[in-house]
Amino acid sequence: MLQAVQEIRKTLGEDSVSTDDEILLAHGYSEWSTVNVDRLPVAVVFPQNTEEVSKIAKICSKYSVPIIPFSGGSSVEGHFSAPYGGVSVDFSYMNRIVEFHAEDMDVQVQPGLSWMDLNKEIEHSGLFFPVDPGPSATIDISQAQIGGMVGTNCSGTNAVRYGTMKDWVVNLTVVLADGTIVKTKRRPRKSSAGYNLNSLFVGSEGTLGLVTEATLKLAPLPTHTGVAVVAFPTIAVAAKMAVEVIQKGVVVGAIEILDDVMMKVINTIGATGRTWKEQPTLFIKFTGDEEMVEHSINRVRCIAEKYGSPHMEFEIDKEKQEELWSARKEALWSMLALRKSGNDTWTTDIAVPLSRIAELIELSKKDLAQTGLFGSILGHVGDGNFHQVILYDGDAERVRVEKCAKDMVYRALEMEGTCTGEHGVGLGKIESLQAELGDVPITIMKNIKRSLDPQWLMNPGKIFHRE
Amino acid sequence: MLQAVQEIRKTLGEDSVSTDDEILLAHGYSEWSTVNVDRLPVAVVFPQNTEEVSKIAKICSKYSVPIIPFSGGSSVEGHFSAPYGGVSVDFSYMNRIVEFHAEDMDVQVQPGLSWMDLNKEIEHSGLFFPVDPGPSATIDISQAQIGGMVGTNCSGTNAVRYGTMKDWVVNLTVVLADGTIVKTKRRPRKSSAGYNLNSLFVGSEGTLGLVTEATLKLAPLPTHTGVAVVAFPTIAVAAKMAVEVIQKGVVVGAIEILDDVMMKVINTIGATGRTWKEQPTLFIKFTGDEEMVEHSINRVRCIAEKYGSPHMEFEIDKEKQEELWSARKEALWSMLALRKSGNDTWTTDIAVPLSRIAELIELSKKDLAQTGLFGSILGHVGDGNFHQVILYDGDAERVRVEKCAKDMVYRALEMEGTCTGEHGVGLGKIESLQAELGDVPITIMKNIKRSLDPQWLMNPGKIFHRE
Repeated sequence: MLQAVQEIRKTLGEDSVSTDDEILLAHGYSEWSTVNVDRLPVAVVFPQNTEEVSKIAKICSKYSVPIIPFSGGSSVEGHFSAPYGGVSVDFSYMNRIVEFHAEDMDVQVQPGLSWMDLNKEIEHSGLFFPVDPGPSATIDISQAQIGGMVGTNCSGTNAVRYGTMKDWVVNLTVVLADGTIVKTKRRPRKSSAGYNLNSLFVGSEGTLGLVTEATLKLAPLPTHTGVAVVAFPTIAVAAKMAVEVIQKGVVVGAIEILDDVMMKVINTIGATGRTWKEQPTLFIKFTGDEEMVEHSINRVRCIAEKYGSPHMEFEIDKEKQEELWSARKEALWSMLALRKSGNDTWTTDIAVPLSRIAELIELSKKDLAQTGLFGSILGHVGDGNFHQVILYDGDAERVRVEKCAKDMVYRALEMEGTCTGEHGVGLGKIESLQAELGDVPITIMKNIKRSLDPQWLMNPGKIFHRE
Repeated sequence: MLQAVQEIRKTLGEDSVSTDDEILLAHGYSEWSTVNVDRLPVAVVFPQNTEEVSKIAKICSKYSVPIIPFSGGSSVEGHFSAPYGGVSVDFSYMNRIVEFHAEDMDVQVQPGLSWMDLNKEIEHSGLFFPVDPGPSATIDISQAQIGGMVGTNCSGTNAVRYGTMKDWVVNLTVVLADGTIVKTKRRPRKSSAGYNLNSLFVGSEGTLGLVTEATLKLAPLPTHTGVAVVAFPTIAVAAKMAVEVIQKGVVVGAIEILDDVMMKVINTIGATGRTWKEQPTLFIKFTGDEEMVEHSINRVRCIAEKYGSPHMEFEIDKEKQEELWSARKEALWSMLALRKSGNDTWTTDIAVPLSRIAELIELSKKDLAQTGLFGSILGHVGDGNFHQVILYDGDAERVRVEKCAKDMVYRALEMEGTCTGEHGVGLGKIESLQAELGDVPITIMKNIKRSLDPQWLMNPGKIFHRE
């Protein structure tokens, strides 16, 4: 491995490679991850362009050294850890917009660009990129970047309206393990030309290649928005109302659920500047033009009344909207702020068919209560997808958290759901994926991997074990 | 091959296999196809369920016999032809809804079910499946069925609002070449669990496996619809207006373009019961609830006025709407009705970035005029996707048509477009795909195929050549 690092250093220049302990740690360990390993990458390389990435891959391939892509580092299932050592390829210096075609509603970007920076840069055009993983950070944590977002097929609150990462990729430039550069498609918004290599690389978690460029579709930026907040006596009723909103085809920009614990945490931390009912609560965003927003709010109001909602607020004024949405925005950070020094966090996500989500949330809350641990639920309920965030301290509690999180996954699978709606498999959910799909689909995945990466160098140990 | 057929007959029963000449011809030749081959399948097999399909594959695999899936047979690029002989697997008897989950907004179906029959059967639920390839038939031609729709990643007029086939598949049951049965996913609407095998099989044109079941997402059936028809002096202006409607984010159900030739043909044939302006014309469909439809019509009206449209009509009354939409519905059939006995039709499709479609349509019309052949253009202009339909007679004209169609593809590629937006590659566009993507992506596709189908038995000769 050190020989490979030396050759990369010689080829790309001294400044392109770091073996600094802190840098290695930041690229092989994450406090947000459900799982970490004892090993770290032997070096971190900072390429400037696709050609340099190709050179790195060629050298690693020559010396059979694992290659681990890194962009953003905000994933939670150990996606960028280095169980077999190897070289971490950090895309920090590849963070530009390459070409912006406003008239075609697409943009070509490098993998190190964060989706929030992308949207800032193109705001003037009246267009935006709608995939929004992770809430806006109010504390110092990396923003999700395009490369990682491709890797995990991520999504976020906007998914209920706009879909997930795979729906927004027009083409990808990918460097394979042997250094071959491949461009998956040209630039049409629609195509039936050959196998869908875009959707193969999207969600493959860096195990098939290194994404060095992506062309992304953009959507017209809504001119108006609105927010509704509706509190309920039980979480099951809240979830049922959310599902009905989707089933009725009401156009919503987002529909999110927070449980009573989460609402209480938000009050305790006080980051939102107001006090909330400590009840299960739906946060609904409306986007479109003025008439569409007003119309959708009215439709949701009718549905909410049917559910006998005791407390609901609607806002279309910009500032008041932000105040209403602030609880959703601050939810995760408020939860994290509760951690005592040395405490850890376990964040997991699952997705199930719409009709099962109310039941699954209720059962998961009961399971959690039985463990005696402190945790809360928030989720993209309109997609049948939710997260559980649990705080814990030390190894004994960790065992209980892990069991609780795995039980939730197995319940989701029993309900024909998936072990991950948007976080991906990484290191943390390899056994869950096996339980979800069984041997045959995973053998197909491994065969595909082998056909692209015969030496098994690309991000090894993620999604599935080699043997 | 005959040994394999005999063994299939023995295993599945006498009635499950046909070697009747007419049946063989109907499964190996299509008058709608741009290309046909001299060979036919040696037998057509009619399985009843996934297990029978698996048995067929095992037998074919044992004797190294090609396997060609057939459902609907409405494709136009020779997708179900048998250049290497082999067995055609016809899914006519696998045409049922297996499970319908209205509350989850999904449905599990067999591959021989047509999308129109599916929608008829579930209409009572207030849900529908929005992918709509091919106009409604007024003449006797097969309707597209789910298996083939998965194969070509098809779409249609609704794609501008709802996306293409790949966006609606929740999971697939697929029989691989060796008879292995694989289920790609469970039943969540959203998932990041491992490689996206759904999107690998969708668009793979039967070259990776036989789809024997599909779970599809459904959408709420719009309660209201409206139609607008706007005629323009030039096709470039019509296309530009359509693109502006999309760029402004106006919610339309469909936005279709017909050129002046097509409008004239519709008048000549007279299937619509009214006389149309013989000018390039946009047909726009609005879907939603009453307020949304009215609002979108108003927004389109404003945009149309900006383009100085001399003639526009809007209807929300159901019968009058159908009259307005009838020209779009009858376009292809009117064109086909013009054929003299013995004449052939060439139907092709391309897609380009939105900003280039007006120019490409104009250039393509000029090219066509120079050939002296009779053809017209219609297209899903909101996706940058359009079709050219050309009539011809005999081999000499066929050579000119082929050149004209290929020139259009190469122009599309120069504009960063694709050789097919929704028809697929089949036999007809193998060279176009090669020109579009180059060697590397196609080598990856072949490696993936080899990893799933090492004997190269599944629909061989489609999308790419073996060597």
